[in-house]
Amino acid sequence: MLAVAALALLTFVEARSQELTKTIAERLGYPSDAKLLIVHADDLGMAHSVNAATIKALETGLVNSGSIMVPCPWLSEIAGFARANPQADLGLHLTLTSEWTSFRWGPVAARDKVASLLDKDGYFRLLESEAAAQADPKEVELEITAQIERARALGIQPTHLDSHMGTLYQNKALFEIFLRVARSQKLPVRVAKTWFARADFLPSTLTADDVYIDRVLDINPTVAPQDWARFYSDALRKLEPGVTEVVIHLAYDDAEMRAATVNHPDWGAAWRQRDFEFFTSDAFRKVLQENNIKLITWRELGKLIK
Amino acid sequence: MLAVAALALLTFVEARSQELTKTIAERLGYPSDAKLLIVHADDLGMAHSVNAATIKALETGLVNSGSIMVPCPWLSEIAGFARANPQADLGLHLTLTSEWTSFRWGPVAARDKVASLLDKDGYFRLLESEAAAQADPKEVELEITAQIERARALGIQPTHLDSHMGTLYQNKALFEIFLRVARSQKLPVRVAKTWFARADFLPSTLTADDVYIDRVLDINPTVAPQDWARFYSDALRKLEPGVTEVVIHLAYDDAEMRAATVNHPDWGAAWRQRDFEFFTSDAFRKVLQENNIKLITWRELGKLIK
Repeated sequence: MLAVAALALLTFVEARSQELTKTIAERLGYPSDAKLLIVHADDLGMAHSVNAATIKALETGLVNSGSIMVPCPWLSEIAGFARANPQADLGLHLTLTSEWTSFRWGPVAARDKVASLLDKDGYFRLLESEAAAQADPKEVELEITAQIERARALGIQPTHLDSHMGTLYQNKALFEIFLRVARSQKLPVRVAKTWFARADFLPSTLTADDVYIDRVLDINPTVAPQDWARFYSDALRKLEPGVTEVVIHLAYDDAEMRAATVNHPDWGAAWRQRDFEFFTSDAFRKVLQENNIKLITWRELGKLIK
Repeated sequence: MLAVAALALLTFVEARSQELTKTIAERLGYPSDAKLLIVHADDLGMAHSVNAATIKALETGLVNSGSIMVPCPWLSEIAGFARANPQADLGLHLTLTSEWTSFRWGPVAARDKVASLLDKDGYFRLLESEAAAQADPKEVELEITAQIERARALGIQPTHLDSHMGTLYQNKALFEIFLRVARSQKLPVRVAKTWFARADFLPSTLTADDVYIDRVLDINPTVAPQDWARFYSDALRKLEPGVTEVVIHLAYDDAEMRAATVNHPDWGAAWRQRDFEFFTSDAFRKVLQENNIKLITWRELGKLIK
């Protein structure tokens, strides 16, 4: 009996050890050289223009994931979409900043319970660095838990969590809260191995039980508008094996979005229209096919969580 | 000495008595047969479309007053306009309901302090009747005071107060709070003498020191879209002497507004575009001239408050 038990234990340890040395692609059941891509639209719920463009893009199948800002005014519209499309890969874009100037939002938790998260006008702060520097970690936990609870109450069943403007990656204390909440919810969080070098609290906080991806691809303000499609196409042609999330921001370049992002061309209305155009284009579909890139979702990643 | 004092007292009593028997037009310094009109756009701050259309209409001078919803997402945009245009006749549209389904808002006060005002999702309720029936009067006072304080903190100097969807006129307890807060702010409230017959708590609560107008004119869903201009023109041709407020709702019939008011044609996007078109038209300007109607503002009415 003892020998059988010892053998079972050895087998378990060996299997566990193999599991730990597997790439995330292999853990998902793909060959280690597979190029796997999540095409992820941030900021759902922020504005009607964002919701409308992202829903349209999700319907093409070329954009296949997104995350929702619970404190924002258009949450109810996207919650309706989520309830009607339970197969959609929708997560929560946990929000602790309110970055535009004409158009603001504040906490889901009671304001007097999360005072450290608020500016003098009672909204979330404009900048992620300020938000992180001023935030009381206990109040962050209360607020992000309230966001998850409100989303679930509205019938959203999130497949993953990420952090608007990266506020929850700004320091170790915030990341630990983020990870603790995500583990308690059994949800994967947006973390990329390529970030480990620039934030050593990431590898020291994560364990082998956590599920994270290889890299995130995103565009930045140094790319000129006329180079938009070329930037993405080039990056996808050079895509390395493993799991990549391309993080995009979709909306229409319309009156609402121009006013919401007034004086902020970066991540502004025209930027989001350009993202919409590329990621719903035949050119994008073609670059996926020609480079043997397979689309996956956070739902698949979440299934790896024990 | 006693005789002089008695004479002074008599003179005071007589003047006061005359004051009390004067019409509101006379108290403003106009003849009693003057036709005085406030052209008032509700719902500022609700949406960008509302702000943009109302600002455009205010610039024509034909629309000359409006009121702001402090809990709404586009408050910052209209607060910027108010700061840049301190002469604009802007009041606060005190808000205790969130009536659309895709697009919601909640309180300015801490949620745990105003729980009686909230629905199960943490927003204000959809209907004014429900809001009034459920509201704890103390929480109403806390919330409307918080709305006034936030507006002032953002540099809005309100000239008057009114109540979104009329929630604060739904019963005597709410109206008493509304009036007490308005008096403490030395601001006039939207009350019309013509309402006295249908709500006897209005005349019993108001005193001769309060400032109120003769009547409110507004359109309603029984008017067909093609009859819009005719309805307003006819009403203005028949306008009785005294102070009338025409309460209108301006926005553009655009993507944002259609989505905000989805499934609600009454006070919806097309409705607001029709209001915008009539109240910025030459036809409206002409009917004002031909009928000797003079535009006045709440700022003038507020000066009567002792």
